[in-house]
Amino acid sequence: MDISEETFIINLGIHIRQLREKKGISQEDLANDCDIPRNQIGRIERAEVNTGIRTLIKIANALDIHPKELLDFSIK
Amino acid sequence: MDISEETFIINLGIHIRQLREKKGISQEDLANDCDIPRNQIGRIERAEVNTGIRTLIKIANALDIHPKELLDFSIK
Repeated sequence: MDISEETFIINLGIHIRQLREKKGISQEDLANDCDIPRNQIGRIERAEVNTGIRTLIKIANALDIHPKELLDFSIK
Repeated sequence: MDISEETFIINLGIHIRQLREKKGISQEDLANDCDIPRNQIGRIERAEVNTGIRTLIKIANALDIHPKELLDFSIK
């Protein structure tokens, strides 16, 4: 069964927010660690952007996880 | 240890090519299934582009796998 892009991106944003908060890192600190604009993490967590794989790799590195873990969540 | 963006994207392209060939689907058919330009799959497989999450979801749907499986490979 196909996964809806919108649903997946919303769940991805929620998942990234949960991973970030579990590490106790602010959106701003994560953005700095990723060397991306400071408002970009909020936009990703709110599912406002079509995030590129390069940014996903940077976020995974900053959170000290494998990139595949960013996409590893159950769809709500 | 941080994963290099370049290395990851190269391995992602190889992995997508392998998944596609295992299903016996041409680049052109996969592009059509994803409703993306016909040369885009080749560019992704050759690691020439910063693929967005929306395209990754489309590719996963077309290959009938979960998006996280696209990122599930060992780095060479």
